[in-house]
Amino acid sequence: MIIDLRSDTITQPTPAMREAMFTAQLGDDVLGDDPTVNALEAKAAALFGMEAALFCASGTMTNQLAIRTHTRPGDDVICDYLSHVYQYEGGGISVNALASASLPQGERGKLTPDLIREYIYNPADSHKPLSRLVVLENTVNKGGGCYYTVPEIAAIRQVCDEHGLILHLDGARLFNALVETGDPTEAYGQLFDSISICLSKGLGCPVGSLLIGKADMIRQARRYRKLMGGGWRQAGFLAAAGIYALDHHIDRLKIDHARARKIGIMLEQVPEVESILPIDTNIVIFKLSANLLATDYVAQLEAKGIRSVAFGKHLVRFVTHLDLTDEMMTNLELRLR
Amino acid sequence: MIIDLRSDTITQPTPAMREAMFTAQLGDDVLGDDPTVNALEAKAAALFGMEAALFCASGTMTNQLAIRTHTRPGDDVICDYLSHVYQYEGGGISVNALASASLPQGERGKLTPDLIREYIYNPADSHKPLSRLVVLENTVNKGGGCYYTVPEIAAIRQVCDEHGLILHLDGARLFNALVETGDPTEAYGQLFDSISICLSKGLGCPVGSLLIGKADMIRQARRYRKLMGGGWRQAGFLAAAGIYALDHHIDRLKIDHARARKIGIMLEQVPEVESILPIDTNIVIFKLSANLLATDYVAQLEAKGIRSVAFGKHLVRFVTHLDLTDEMMTNLELRLR
Amino acid sequence: MIIDLRSDTITQPTPAMREAMFTAQLGDDVLGDDPTVNALEAKAAALFGMEAALFCASGTMTNQLAIRTHTRPGDDVICDYLSHVYQYEGGGISVNALASASLPQGERGKLTPDLIREYIYNPADSHKPLSRLVVLENTVNKGGGCYYTVPEIAAIRQVCDEHGLILHLDGARLFNALVETGDPTEAYGQLFDSISICLSKGLGCPVGSLLIGKADMIRQARRYRKLMGGGWRQAGFLAAAGIYALDHHIDRLKIDHARARKIGIMLEQVPEVESILPIDTNIVIFKLSANLLATDYVAQLEAKGIRSVAFGKHLVRFVTHLDLTDEMMTNLELRLR
Amino acid sequence: MIIDLRSDTITQPTPAMREAMFTAQLGDDVLGDDPTVNALEAKAAALFGMEAALFCASGTMTNQLAIRTHTRPGDDVICDYLSHVYQYEGGGISVNALASASLPQGERGKLTPDLIREYIYNPADSHKPLSRLVVLENTVNKGGGCYYTVPEIAAIRQVCDEHGLILHLDGARLFNALVETGDPTEAYGQLFDSISICLSKGLGCPVGSLLIGKADMIRQARRYRKLMGGGWRQAGFLAAAGIYALDHHIDRLKIDHARARKIGIMLEQVPEVESILPIDTNIVIFKLSANLLATDYVAQLEAKGIRSVAFGKHLVRFVTHLDLTDEMMTNLELRLR
Repeated sequence: MIIDLRSDTITQPTPAMREAMFTAQLGDDVLGDDPTVNALEAKAAALFGMEAALFCASGTMTNQLAIRTHTRPGDDVICDYLSHVYQYEGGGISVNALASASLPQGERGKLTPDLIREYIYNPADSHKPLSRLVVLENTVNKGGGCYYTVPEIAAIRQVCDEHGLILHLDGARLFNALVETGDPTEAYGQLFDSISICLSKGLGCPVGSLLIGKADMIRQARRYRKLMGGGWRQAGFLAAAGIYALDHHIDRLKIDHARARKIGIMLEQVPEVESILPIDTNIVIFKLSANLLATDYVAQLEAKGIRSVAFGKHLVRFVTHLDLTDEMMTNLELRLR
Repeated sequence: MIIDLRSDTITQPTPAMREAMFTAQLGDDVLGDDPTVNALEAKAAALFGMEAALFCASGTMTNQLAIRTHTRPGDDVICDYLSHVYQYEGGGISVNALASASLPQGERGKLTPDLIREYIYNPADSHKPLSRLVVLENTVNKGGGCYYTVPEIAAIRQVCDEHGLILHLDGARLFNALVETGDPTEAYGQLFDSISICLSKGLGCPVGSLLIGKADMIRQARRYRKLMGGGWRQAGFLAAAGIYALDHHIDRLKIDHARARKIGIMLEQVPEVESILPIDTNIVIFKLSANLLATDYVAQLEAKGIRSVAFGKHLVRFVTHLDLTDEMMTNLELRLR
Repeated sequence: MIIDLRSDTITQPTPAMREAMFTAQLGDDVLGDDPTVNALEAKAAALFGMEAALFCASGTMTNQLAIRTHTRPGDDVICDYLSHVYQYEGGGISVNALASASLPQGERGKLTPDLIREYIYNPADSHKPLSRLVVLENTVNKGGGCYYTVPEIAAIRQVCDEHGLILHLDGARLFNALVETGDPTEAYGQLFDSISICLSKGLGCPVGSLLIGKADMIRQARRYRKLMGGGWRQAGFLAAAGIYALDHHIDRLKIDHARARKIGIMLEQVPEVESILPIDTNIVIFKLSANLLATDYVAQLEAKGIRSVAFGKHLVRFVTHLDLTDEMMTNLELRLR
Repeated sequence: MIIDLRSDTITQPTPAMREAMFTAQLGDDVLGDDPTVNALEAKAAALFGMEAALFCASGTMTNQLAIRTHTRPGDDVICDYLSHVYQYEGGGISVNALASASLPQGERGKLTPDLIREYIYNPADSHKPLSRLVVLENTVNKGGGCYYTVPEIAAIRQVCDEHGLILHLDGARLFNALVETGDPTEAYGQLFDSISICLSKGLGCPVGSLLIGKADMIRQARRYRKLMGGGWRQAGFLAAAGIYALDHHIDRLKIDHARARKIGIMLEQVPEVESILPIDTNIVIFKLSANLLATDYVAQLEAKGIRSVAFGKHLVRFVTHLDLTDEMMTNLELRLR
């Protein structure tokens, strides 16, 4: 039995989700004909009280669509140095949007109004790109799954309003935040100009993310999706999984969080582990003692049947998810010793 | 009963294809773990005797990946004015590759060595973009499904070799050509630097295309796919459909071709139809009499339960496919009268 | 004595222009400090009754700034196939603006309302780029120096207004048109959203072009100029030549036109010349007999001390300009025989 | 008498330089005909023992040409966070090259082998851009004019060689470094793949920079220069100034450095000044006391006839240059009190 803690993206659809997929109504989504895709997009938009949504193959696609739709070449995107859009999207801010990145370094990847203000350039100075967009990530992957509260976001929204900046949320793991804070999705719909949510992480779908925003913006994003090759035909199979996940897999994220905290307690007993980032949701990032490389320790764990990811020179990441079992948890404790 | 002749992309998976999909082994393809995706990519590469393949969400994605991988900004792509990469990929040659397009106008969208030679610029002249890539489409959608023979392609390959040009095939409907010519796939693997084939057109898959080429080129394409948001997780569902289609749905394309020819005979009796392009595969393009707009005639057909696409001011396109039945064919004849 | 008819760009400043350059007030134009640059920009804007202008190193820069300022990636530019922005700017429409080009083929490179209408795409169709900008060239270089009348342009402006399209003028040789038609510059200022004029062609300056338009647009263009490396320091030397040229070198373009017509008469006697395009301004394009390559004939002329440019397989271009003398004209006649 | 310490770019040509400019031989540089431009390019290449050079309108143009020539879209450029190419070129790394920037924070903007190594990504990981190019700046403007030694650069060259990285020098103020270190230009020609030097800063030319490198690279850069609008016609005027400056204005930079040090001593007496960066060349950056904003202090100085630049919230920059006089230095001391 392999205990795979590499990511919550590795999960396989449950039997009930498969049933939903197998019985879905299909059409040609490029022609706008797929009823299940249309239903998923409508459901997601309604969930956040926003106008429209677009179902895409990945969270990178939804984030990059948002960035290129909100900016023009020569604009600047303010995002934390640790953010996924800068760290893990292949340099897409530059390649897709021809935008620059300003990279404040917040506490565990979280921006603040003051940090953002420092990176807003004088718009009359043509030596500088033009500040246009702020991107928040919630929860913050590289920050160990920490999250924002609504008042924190509202304060950032205000800075954006003062300076005419657009605000996008990379909510790949937004529901992990929401089950902890209890914040309503509608509050997010009001605070952000656009939101990306991922269905294939904690929610357990095989493929898919949603970009949610104003109708005009989604129309433009659909246009860009086409030329990025993201138009797909009978995508209703995958959309059906998404509808199922939104209906059935949000609340259970608390189980993942409880297990993550339990793993944290296990790690406190592991001599190789020097420190552990606070565990707020389903991500556990821990630091190894100075003489142990993350890549070496990941290999040692692999040999014990535990899969993980090196997340820095001495940092390792575990992620809990839908495919973990109690048996695996028990085994994990044994193997980690 | 609606007779939908808009495109061969509208087909729904057959029961046997669905069975293949829902029993597929899955993994996380972004991590390289999906065994079904890996099997499909290996199968496609082997089919053409090429080194590697990449499974993507659409033919636009595979074509655009090829173009951006083969070129640098400021290069020039030679493709027929009618070609899909210029006409229907949202301007992607410019947006994705920052390349210009030179647009010879061949007979029914087919390039020739002489046409290509006229558009190869003097590489020392910096007023001009640098000629780098030739793209052929086979069969040619806008040309009414006409196809190239291997000797025709070999002559074009020679021009490319003389001028250091790369040669890519948009083979969205390549198998429609092959069942007519009997040419082996390996010949194509030898003549082209890269090939895109589509699984969701005549082959009947819900979603997916493959880019096939040298290992280095596919590695670079995989990198670009990531930043276009084309990395997907448990894509094995869709890959399983592709494997099934390559095994079972190629030969039956002849049925589509026979039906297309039969529709051509029906159309000869239709008074509104002025002329019909030669019918070589599964596409039927016909011209209406001068006073009838294609959009109006398409609406008239829709009212009769026949779906089609306006393909120019006075041009209409029908496409035959896997979901047509004999009953529909009989009905079509009645309704067209 | 070499008779250089390659282009009107080869002229050298006259003594009076040099005097203006030598005594110009200078400053640092990147800091907005150069009084002569500022005066030239104000003069050019006033000449066309427009709000602002930007002095740049070339007509390619001003055209490309206009195109990238007026468009977003994924937009489409409608310009005649023969236009300079498509033919001679290194593929800049794609590279600088990530825009596609639609390329109607008008009579001698001149667009008409009907031609433009054929290339305006349905904005709801994401298979197509979004029609955004029309570019006219006046006079048309590749068309042999032919020009538009104001009513012709007004009809095109109307099509643009109907479809929400922006209209830019590549007026590299605009003054050559104006001395023939007598049209006022203000009419152009009213018909176009932006105008590029070139100082280093018929007007005889060493370096420089101006982009003229609305204040907001010029502000954005100044920003893009910076990142294209077009910000320059003590550019007042060159601006002084521009002011001198606008004051003294416009009317004399008639001399160039008269000489061009005279050359046309000479060419009628040349046996190698099969036909000559109508000569409307300072450009003479002639076609050689079918068995004679332009590159060969250009070499023959070079051997006789006449410099010219091959402008197609069998086409040669002569351009008259400020540095031609009566003596050269007499000699030309002798040498052409 | 205004004492303008904003930048060494504000200088006006000396009478001797003007003489060189106005007696220069001219031609059409776009056609490759300008003998003075050709001579300057040859002289610059020879100076560094490199193959070729390209004369451009600005240092931003030469840097951006280098970056886009050395990279492909999706590549990553490693440059110090303070570097000009990131801070002051309008976001050009993203817009011109579609490259990302990795931004180590060295001591006063100077990179080290260790810092660079931390930002070289695993080339197999498509989540990351591909590390391709390292850019050093010498002297470092934002670092207060500090410089590298040849052994420091050699160690960086070695890291580049180990990882297949290209090394470009933004040598806008390279000669300011060389007059201090005594290093030969040829050593630089051997260590870097390309070098940009600026003629319009300390060297006192009105306009112009040179990009120097391998012949192939310069050929490609010339192509990109065209589409950036950087091709210019009778640029020999400006090239003549460049030749003069390389012959006569390098050694005298020591005077600027001595004056900068003298200003440093003056500033030690100024109560508003909290600290001064070490003064290595012609740049003086000082920090104001915490309650004084740079913009306010710059305004106070302006009122006293001293021009300067705010270089951060509490940082001000003075730059010494060719147009400073002893009288100004004396006056400066009086006015600063």
